[in-house]
Amino acid sequence: MIYKRQGNQTVVFENPPVILSSYSVVGPKEGKGPLGKTFSKVLPDSLNGNKSWEVAESKMLEAAMQGALEQSRLKSDEIDYMLAGDLLNQIISSNFAARTMGLPFIGLYGACSTMALGMAVGSMLIDGGFARNVLVGVSSHHDTAERQYRSPTEQGNQRAMSAQWTVTGAGSLVLAQSGTGPRVTAATIGRVLDFGEKNVNNMGGAMAPAVADTILNHMNDLKRTPADYDLIVSGDLGQVGLMLAKEVLKRSGVETANQFNDCGVMIYDSGQDVHAGGSGCACSAVVFAGDIMQKLNSKQYKRVLLAGSGALHSPTSSLQGESVPGIGHAIVIEA
Amino acid sequence: MIYKRQGNQTVVFENPPVILSSYSVVGPKEGKGPLGKTFSKVLPDSLNGNKSWEVAESKMLEAAMQGALEQSRLKSDEIDYMLAGDLLNQIISSNFAARTMGLPFIGLYGACSTMALGMAVGSMLIDGGFARNVLVGVSSHHDTAERQYRSPTEQGNQRAMSAQWTVTGAGSLVLAQSGTGPRVTAATIGRVLDFGEKNVNNMGGAMAPAVADTILNHMNDLKRTPADYDLIVSGDLGQVGLMLAKEVLKRSGVETANQFNDCGVMIYDSGQDVHAGGSGCACSAVVFAGDIMQKLNSKQYKRVLLAGSGALHSPTSSLQGESVPGIGHAIVIEA
Repeated sequence: MIYKRQGNQTVVFENPPVILSSYSVVGPKEGKGPLGKTFSKVLPDSLNGNKSWEVAESKMLEAAMQGALEQSRLKSDEIDYMLAGDLLNQIISSNFAARTMGLPFIGLYGACSTMALGMAVGSMLIDGGFARNVLVGVSSHHDTAERQYRSPTEQGNQRAMSAQWTVTGAGSLVLAQSGTGPRVTAATIGRVLDFGEKNVNNMGGAMAPAVADTILNHMNDLKRTPADYDLIVSGDLGQVGLMLAKEVLKRSGVETANQFNDCGVMIYDSGQDVHAGGSGCACSAVVFAGDIMQKLNSKQYKRVLLAGSGALHSPTSSLQGESVPGIGHAIVIEA
Repeated sequence: MIYKRQGNQTVVFENPPVILSSYSVVGPKEGKGPLGKTFSKVLPDSLNGNKSWEVAESKMLEAAMQGALEQSRLKSDEIDYMLAGDLLNQIISSNFAARTMGLPFIGLYGACSTMALGMAVGSMLIDGGFARNVLVGVSSHHDTAERQYRSPTEQGNQRAMSAQWTVTGAGSLVLAQSGTGPRVTAATIGRVLDFGEKNVNNMGGAMAPAVADTILNHMNDLKRTPADYDLIVSGDLGQVGLMLAKEVLKRSGVETANQFNDCGVMIYDSGQDVHAGGSGCACSAVVFAGDIMQKLNSKQYKRVLLAGSGALHSPTSSLQGESVPGIGHAIVIEA
């Protein structure tokens, strides 16, 4: 029987799935950031004509998925599965988007690592022969996330300097068995690690050990070093988490240079008052669907490691005194 | 390239994964029900020595996963992935269980259909060559679900006759590339359907159209009829939903007889004051891991269709006036 594992935790695809298309929708704040011009669509405001932020988030995800589908030039009935997830309780943004899309639906929860998780699982479904084409998407929304995870936004609480700003946006892409585009060549599904972080205003710190663990295992499994990648990019560690992850890697003998960056650090600039950077499922999804895909398509990047980062934070468990576990899922994309 | 689809929505496995072992943990009420003797472990009370129901739920899931792992006689490092999900916000029961298990973790959300979803995706990972062995598990807990989805349990609200009782329990099993046991031979991942049900005390009604749709597509895809199965069993439609699903199937030209049953109807008896029956992720998981697995192992059942049912209900979206979409995922298990 076939067994596509290499090392402990990494699978290498026999027929690497192609990323046929990608689409990103963001809110106005993200549109004003340094990557503003790389997004497919910038909304005028965070409600975008809807009656609630939650409906606005789900409609954003629908728009991103419809956008990716259109750009792939595939018909809806050529998509075998839709994989999606988001940060809202019961992943409602994804469920309602799936209701509209009408596709066989696999709901995922990996907190902010969900885009990388969806691309990993979607690639396995294609390489395993279960799907010709898969539509993957995630969303997050600053206002829906703030009121669910922290405080009512209207309260205007002062934010800690280690806190991050949830990206309002949605990213989607079509993975395919054949076609032209960058390819997903390997995936490393991560383990849940918990170093005891209880400060819910330091999600970067909570996620850093798990992301570093996944990157280390990935390098060991494939016998690679950071120099084998043009870009190693975590999902939303932010400035605090990125610094910690680099330190963990360094102490484990893996030196990363400037090629290790973080989507949460890239998406806003220092004048945008976001403290430690961006976060949320959409953070890595829109940076990948926009900036990174463009640089893969132009061959500026030949090989990228996207290391999605998830803080498995829950208000319920935090109020009950639990710490915040983290997870990281890494995928390799090659031009 | 290989393509294992048959019809629109169903995949048929080339090397059907084996269910090496299964384990179920339930609360005292489930232990007193008609299937009480089929469960691996019955807890003395719903806290089981923990400081909160949420911790108790997560520990139950851990116990079920450890139990399935032990009975499989595999070592932890022979398990390539853990797939799990539950009903709590951010699937905390699964995240904390994954922290203990230390395995590469894929978090799923399919509401009460998650066991069937996990078995379907897990089987694809094995048949696709990405894993030798996969550990799948889910949990639910009456008290954690009631206070999250409905009212504080201490309030003692009167329950509607169409309401169901969330099963306190956890079920887990090991899927493997090789070995002895019943095999997962096919899977039909469902679409999200919404017929406008807004009564959050009638989840069976909300789920019935999606479950019937999945069963119909499954039969069409494989050119089968209900007579090809010794048992067709939905996850937790309850009495109201089961009746509706049978009616939808009948009007679509698919007559089901007594072989169509529901885990939510099977798990409690009429004297247990559960109104329309059991529900929750654990409902189908513990009935499958106990009663159904035993009858597959003894060859009393030769071919079973497990149709997991999920009500994608969220208190947030319901309070905002949305209806409750449903989903159904079906898998075929053969002795």
